[in-house]
Amino acid sequence: MSGAAPELRLPSSVVDKAVAEALAEDLGLGGDITTEATIPSGTRAAGVIAARQPGTIAGVQLAEAAFKTLDPFVQFDVIAGDGRRVEAGGTIARVGGDARALLGAERTALNFLGHLSGIATLTARYVAEVAGTRAQIVDTRKTMPGLRALEKFAVRCGGGVNHRFGLFDAVLIKDNHIVAAGGIGAALERARARAGHMVKVEIEVSSLDELVEALRLAPDAVLLDNMPVAMLKAAVAEVAGRVITEASGGITLNTVRAIAETGVDLISVGALTHSAPVLDIGLDFNTRS
Amino acid sequence: MSGAAPELRLPSSVVDKAVAEALAEDLGLGGDITTEATIPSGTRAAGVIAARQPGTIAGVQLAEAAFKTLDPFVQFDVIAGDGRRVEAGGTIARVGGDARALLGAERTALNFLGHLSGIATLTARYVAEVAGTRAQIVDTRKTMPGLRALEKFAVRCGGGVNHRFGLFDAVLIKDNHIVAAGGIGAALERARARAGHMVKVEIEVSSLDELVEALRLAPDAVLLDNMPVAMLKAAVAEVAGRVITEASGGITLNTVRAIAETGVDLISVGALTHSAPVLDIGLDFNTRS
Amino acid sequence: MSGAAPELRLPSSVVDKAVAEALAEDLGLGGDITTEATIPSGTRAAGVIAARQPGTIAGVQLAEAAFKTLDPFVQFDVIAGDGRRVEAGGTIARVGGDARALLGAERTALNFLGHLSGIATLTARYVAEVAGTRAQIVDTRKTMPGLRALEKFAVRCGGGVNHRFGLFDAVLIKDNHIVAAGGIGAALERARARAGHMVKVEIEVSSLDELVEALRLAPDAVLLDNMPVAMLKAAVAEVAGRVITEASGGITLNTVRAIAETGVDLISVGALTHSAPVLDIGLDFNTRS
Amino acid sequence: MSGAAPELRLPSSVVDKAVAEALAEDLGLGGDITTEATIPSGTRAAGVIAARQPGTIAGVQLAEAAFKTLDPFVQFDVIAGDGRRVEAGGTIARVGGDARALLGAERTALNFLGHLSGIATLTARYVAEVAGTRAQIVDTRKTMPGLRALEKFAVRCGGGVNHRFGLFDAVLIKDNHIVAAGGIGAALERARARAGHMVKVEIEVSSLDELVEALRLAPDAVLLDNMPVAMLKAAVAEVAGRVITEASGGITLNTVRAIAETGVDLISVGALTHSAPVLDIGLDFNTRS
Amino acid sequence: MSGAAPELRLPSSVVDKAVAEALAEDLGLGGDITTEATIPSGTRAAGVIAARQPGTIAGVQLAEAAFKTLDPFVQFDVIAGDGRRVEAGGTIARVGGDARALLGAERTALNFLGHLSGIATLTARYVAEVAGTRAQIVDTRKTMPGLRALEKFAVRCGGGVNHRFGLFDAVLIKDNHIVAAGGIGAALERARARAGHMVKVEIEVSSLDELVEALRLAPDAVLLDNMPVAMLKAAVAEVAGRVITEASGGITLNTVRAIAETGVDLISVGALTHSAPVLDIGLDFNTRS
Amino acid sequence: MSGAAPELRLPSSVVDKAVAEALAEDLGLGGDITTEATIPSGTRAAGVIAARQPGTIAGVQLAEAAFKTLDPFVQFDVIAGDGRRVEAGGTIARVGGDARALLGAERTALNFLGHLSGIATLTARYVAEVAGTRAQIVDTRKTMPGLRALEKFAVRCGGGVNHRFGLFDAVLIKDNHIVAAGGIGAALERARARAGHMVKVEIEVSSLDELVEALRLAPDAVLLDNMPVAMLKAAVAEVAGRVITEASGGITLNTVRAIAETGVDLISVGALTHSAPVLDIGLDFNTRS
Repeated sequence: MSGAAPELRLPSSVVDKAVAEALAEDLGLGGDITTEATIPSGTRAAGVIAARQPGTIAGVQLAEAAFKTLDPFVQFDVIAGDGRRVEAGGTIARVGGDARALLGAERTALNFLGHLSGIATLTARYVAEVAGTRAQIVDTRKTMPGLRALEKFAVRCGGGVNHRFGLFDAVLIKDNHIVAAGGIGAALERARARAGHMVKVEIEVSSLDELVEALRLAPDAVLLDNMPVAMLKAAVAEVAGRVITEASGGITLNTVRAIAETGVDLISVGALTHSAPVLDIGLDFNTRS
Repeated sequence: MSGAAPELRLPSSVVDKAVAEALAEDLGLGGDITTEATIPSGTRAAGVIAARQPGTIAGVQLAEAAFKTLDPFVQFDVIAGDGRRVEAGGTIARVGGDARALLGAERTALNFLGHLSGIATLTARYVAEVAGTRAQIVDTRKTMPGLRALEKFAVRCGGGVNHRFGLFDAVLIKDNHIVAAGGIGAALERARARAGHMVKVEIEVSSLDELVEALRLAPDAVLLDNMPVAMLKAAVAEVAGRVITEASGGITLNTVRAIAETGVDLISVGALTHSAPVLDIGLDFNTRS
Repeated sequence: MSGAAPELRLPSSVVDKAVAEALAEDLGLGGDITTEATIPSGTRAAGVIAARQPGTIAGVQLAEAAFKTLDPFVQFDVIAGDGRRVEAGGTIARVGGDARALLGAERTALNFLGHLSGIATLTARYVAEVAGTRAQIVDTRKTMPGLRALEKFAVRCGGGVNHRFGLFDAVLIKDNHIVAAGGIGAALERARARAGHMVKVEIEVSSLDELVEALRLAPDAVLLDNMPVAMLKAAVAEVAGRVITEASGGITLNTVRAIAETGVDLISVGALTHSAPVLDIGLDFNTRS
Repeated sequence: MSGAAPELRLPSSVVDKAVAEALAEDLGLGGDITTEATIPSGTRAAGVIAARQPGTIAGVQLAEAAFKTLDPFVQFDVIAGDGRRVEAGGTIARVGGDARALLGAERTALNFLGHLSGIATLTARYVAEVAGTRAQIVDTRKTMPGLRALEKFAVRCGGGVNHRFGLFDAVLIKDNHIVAAGGIGAALERARARAGHMVKVEIEVSSLDELVEALRLAPDAVLLDNMPVAMLKAAVAEVAGRVITEASGGITLNTVRAIAETGVDLISVGALTHSAPVLDIGLDFNTRS
Repeated sequence: MSGAAPELRLPSSVVDKAVAEALAEDLGLGGDITTEATIPSGTRAAGVIAARQPGTIAGVQLAEAAFKTLDPFVQFDVIAGDGRRVEAGGTIARVGGDARALLGAERTALNFLGHLSGIATLTARYVAEVAGTRAQIVDTRKTMPGLRALEKFAVRCGGGVNHRFGLFDAVLIKDNHIVAAGGIGAALERARARAGHMVKVEIEVSSLDELVEALRLAPDAVLLDNMPVAMLKAAVAEVAGRVITEASGGITLNTVRAIAETGVDLISVGALTHSAPVLDIGLDFNTRS
Repeated sequence: MSGAAPELRLPSSVVDKAVAEALAEDLGLGGDITTEATIPSGTRAAGVIAARQPGTIAGVQLAEAAFKTLDPFVQFDVIAGDGRRVEAGGTIARVGGDARALLGAERTALNFLGHLSGIATLTARYVAEVAGTRAQIVDTRKTMPGLRALEKFAVRCGGGVNHRFGLFDAVLIKDNHIVAAGGIGAALERARARAGHMVKVEIEVSSLDELVEALRLAPDAVLLDNMPVAMLKAAVAEVAGRVITEASGGITLNTVRAIAETGVDLISVGALTHSAPVLDIGLDFNTRS
């Protein structure tokens, strides 16, 4: 994905809103009272944003916007942009400008970078595990409330692909829907009748019998829920390429390779967004003369 | 903290705003198209929200608000509220009402509960590690952007205490401030002159010499940054109870006990909020007749 | 669609936001100064919302919300809900409550109802024109800025189906994308690599040669742009059911039948949302005793 | 109005808010996924915005803002500004800049231009019909919810004049107010007592008797509701220039001339804003080398 | 005005927005930490809101909304509503409910009541000064930013009348406009051509010559700016009832009577909103048993 | 404070939000219709913002932002910035640019400047009264709803210091809290247990006995409520420098000196923000050639 990653961009309105809210949360109505008291206005500073452990970067746009919101004249030079792999100590960006602005935005910028790079790094580990198979790593809706657009972007930075964004942009029929609709067939028929022609329909199955029943109505994809590896293999054989297959359910770095080798198209992993630890990233200021 | 926790409450405006944003993110402008297609309007459902692993609960208010936003008549009975410890399988709440509303809000409710209970659970582990010492576990500003109020609340649910909320409500003088102000003394004097009488002033020191210098100007607290255990002990002796002492810097579950035994008042842990894995919580619907 | 229509519902957050903005626009910061001056507080009123010409109804949820925003105790009984056909003079709803609230919300409620029912009525005319063919009537992104969710809902009320909601939820490759990507093949390959497995990909073609080229890469749908009827027939034959076919471009009530008879799956009509005249709907107050 | 029209300007805050909402609606949280996939970042493009049928232009400010919101460096040269008449094929503006920004904002810009120019064009037709009489064409509150400021601006671009903006800025006493207040006299007295000296008071009458009664209390204007032409003539004679006269009620392009010739000052037409068809306007990109 | 005042109502959306913002400002993201710590949840309280000095009340709606926002079940009984005169010690309302909610909203409620009642009280003093003359007391646009709707409402509660709300709802031509337009006549002609028939036009004059020139073009009102009493008398004589007359400029309680006796229709007083001292109002809790 | 004041800055997000709301309030959806009608577009103007009475300036940032929001190219040169003392006639700033923008923002800019400079001026008078004592002048939460951040900033511009911002950033235990908690001791213990180590705790006492009881639990500060001068002296002696002392309750310019001479650390004055009259500030346009 090295070729594609540098072009990954979040819509600027998403960036601006997220940054404004994060800064508002940290600065409140009173601002950075420590900096105001101790740093004379007009002081200049410069520094380097660097990773303190190896990982894959995501969120550089947000870091840049955090600094520039407090001072539009901040200089921000990207060295390793979104989707790039860095080693421990690797520089992500150089930043320079008004010292009060840099200190006021520092934590906000690092919080975005650390969280999103943590997701990208974990995603990249899963992607590496399945190298050579046909499987792609895909995210879920198990995201931090309010941060989904950013987190799904970070998954793409790590080489993963995105599942549906929310409840509104694709149909995913789960067990409760099937029960309420009166069966797999009824659920699929209702869903196809309701969804427009540009909306895909996926259905969750947990046995081969359910899979066979679902395939009769030609969904776009089937979610193979919590199936053991042997059953997954049989399911992939049953599908025989007719629809997209997705494996899901408690998949970890230890188990993902075996699952990928069953031949499924997609493996969805909730941990990418709900449990990725931060990537340790810091801002070191140059010594001012 | 078992006695106090049940009274922990987030301001309702904070709850309402967070829930509205999270639902908007998931429902978009089109709503839950799967549920609309497959669940007849008027269908009723009921279920149990339960932990699938042991932990400390936080976020029940938000889960309740998520369901009630989609249907004000949802019944939501709290079994284990914020701050309560549950075992694997332990029930957190029972929920019943319009099936479309329950399914539409399910993921949003669980995302809040899982993330915040993950923080509370991790905090409680740190708190347990330092039992019997005078040390309290305290959070940092290393939070998910936009979620700080919720995450700091979760830390309290886990038995931790909150550090300053943001840059606006307390003074924390760090190395860059000291350099820019021209020394520890100058920085402290300026900070005290600027801060109102209701604002506390803490200063970061990384050696005993700096500590001695700082104590001459009577800050409210000193942050002992990245000190080895022996130096921490010496620092605590030097302070001799005159000001609050806080140990900080890369502290883990493995190292926190030794640090607590130095006699520091507070131990701040960024991982509480930036790297807590989700607590696995699910909603199981009753079989509908 | 008579069976499905009564269950059509807009997400309540969409309704509440649209109504709040519309009322704010009409009431400003000063309120309804005519009513405040002339109607004693406490006065009760009741009336009937009725169509003054035949049509298909959409927007009843919004009308109800407009009245209830000004007075939660307004009684609002729906007689002909969203998706229902009414004759001239047909009652849509009965409304009763505080006279000041009814007068203050009257115009807002009728503006929603009139515009959305206008769209539903026009859509139903197109749908009726193609009865007996396989063609469905589908909308476009040519909507009133800010009103897309409402207008696309009105299209569904009229028996149409929705195309993609915006630029974010499906891929539609047009001529400019093809030129920039370096051809139909390159554009389709890039789109498929970028789009997740739940996102459909449609491509616009304007000749049979382009169609053949596009079909080699198996898009989900092809948009047959501005083709004459004979070419459309040939295109449908070429596709032979392998992908969804959509006819588009200047289609009117006069031409839609002939286009439907070519065998295309979908016919998109911008006029549904950009040029539908209002359906004349009024609120007649009962004479108060 | 050719002289005044070029100076017509919407407040920039109104423009910015409308454009931000419309772009957010189209781009969602994921952005323009087709363009991101197919157009390399850094690609430049240029094109011409032109009318495909004759009409009067409104909304150029909004189109410009749509492009510049996505890329502040877009070049946008206005050829035919708001209030200008163009022929079929007439150029409205030339636009050039980042290709991704141009494609991402294209539909939003055209939706504003098409709808508002549709209103301006219809208004100009009514204005032309009454040329040589004293009558002015005036709008109503029958506007698209949320778009009133834009639509009333478009009416001015078409040579019409604006009635009150909402319920808050002028008094218009209708039949329900009169009944509740206990008669024309009581309603007018209450309204005058409540309204400040800068607020005008108009009253609706539907017969000559009512007109005579209203004139005794010297309103600023009378709305002659649904009167036939002969009655309108008699009403104008009765008023004899003492107050402003407004004809209202189901007036069309076929009937407006006869009504204007009765000598009324104003003719209000709801269709200007509730039923104006779009003006067909497109953006043609230059062939890129 | 005693009869009309009890019916004075702010639009509920104005009340809700102002109260939400004020509570958010006071409660922040952390809430009322003193009350949370010291008042057991479930504690009930009751008290009396009373004036500690005589005055005219305004803002009771806002006080009620403040309490009910924190607890919808608060009991709030109005004793002296908006527009009512109270003596020192006079009860305005009785309030009872959840103690945490009452304490959390107390200051917000009193801040609204105190400020708005301060304006109403000062207005009532001016109104009393001019009793028996034809003059009405009118406000200006010299209001606290963001509070204009509330402050103008308070002026009405005090018996005053409102001037235009803002720059958008009436024309007021001042000296700078006249200079730029090229004279009084040109300015009035342009204004009348631009303003709709429901918009009033007032022009500022500062000499009798200017007045005579202005009257030739029949504005709706003239603002007699900073004229001495003798000149005002002459101006009123010159106008002879043809248009509304407004005296303006540095008018105080000491000078307002003499100005009123010149026969002007209106006297505008900026101090009503920019310099009214608070009315001292408190909330005394009953001793809880 | 002359040295520190020039560096006083409001967070830019606070400035931008306040200015946007104030301009929206004044310009509405229709804009400045007088200026649009009378001032040709492209007209340039320049003028001087000057005080018409002596005082201390606050709010210059807001005035500048008001003009620049309407025209980013306005030239705004600050002569006397926030915290500066000016004499009658003293220039605060020179402003030049598009005449329509200057006239559209004039009143908004002056409303901010007048109100905030009024507060700064009144604060400076109190500060001057206590010169030579140890007492500092401090504000309260009795602020105009929605304007607290601005008003507390103005207090700092006048040489005062800020008390807690709201209910969330410090603990202030009042009589109702003490009663509910079951006494001074219980209230202080609960507060200390709840509040983090960076939150100060103040308690209100109204007698020497209560003071003695409170001092046993070592709060950070004591609020000496409504004590006569002699009791204040005794209280200061009792405290003997152990905690911060604050005098509060009905303190005026006439009484503040005597209170300061008791030796208290702080004197809080609600009138600074709830009753400060405007400072008269105007904008005089240069005669245009």
